[in-house]
Amino acid sequence: MPSSKRPASQARVVFGQRLREARHARDLTLEDLAERADMNWSYIAQVERGIRNVSIDNMAALADALGLPLRDLL
Amino acid sequence: MPSSKRPASQARVVFGQRLREARHARDLTLEDLAERADMNWSYIAQVERGIRNVSIDNMAALADALGLPLRDLL
Repeated sequence: MPSSKRPASQARVVFGQRLREARHARDLTLEDLAERADMNWSYIAQVERGIRNVSIDNMAALADALGLPLRDLL
Repeated sequence: MPSSKRPASQARVVFGQRLREARHARDLTLEDLAERADMNWSYIAQVERGIRNVSIDNMAALADALGLPLRDLL
């Protein structure tokens, strides 16, 4: 089943929540994180809300921008 | 930077290697895993080789198909 047909995974929700928690723990705004990760802040906001079927490369870039290993966000 | 412009992350390679190791540890062929995860076996082969910028939903489906938490594959 192509991922476009697959129901949204619980992993999206977990990743989004932990991403937001880690960002807040570092007193970073969406704009701050967007600048660090070289991404659009509104895209990150959607990832945090579990709306986006985020790719592994973007997940890795966000984890790097927070100075965290990716597995800590899952 | 849209993920299409972003260089392939090291996370792709790690996920691919651990996916293959977990599949072999369970004596599953690519076809077996493809059937469990409802995916194309050649797509999984590319994910294992770190070629695909795999999405979080597909990563979660592959982890579920192996009976593993996603973070164990990262």
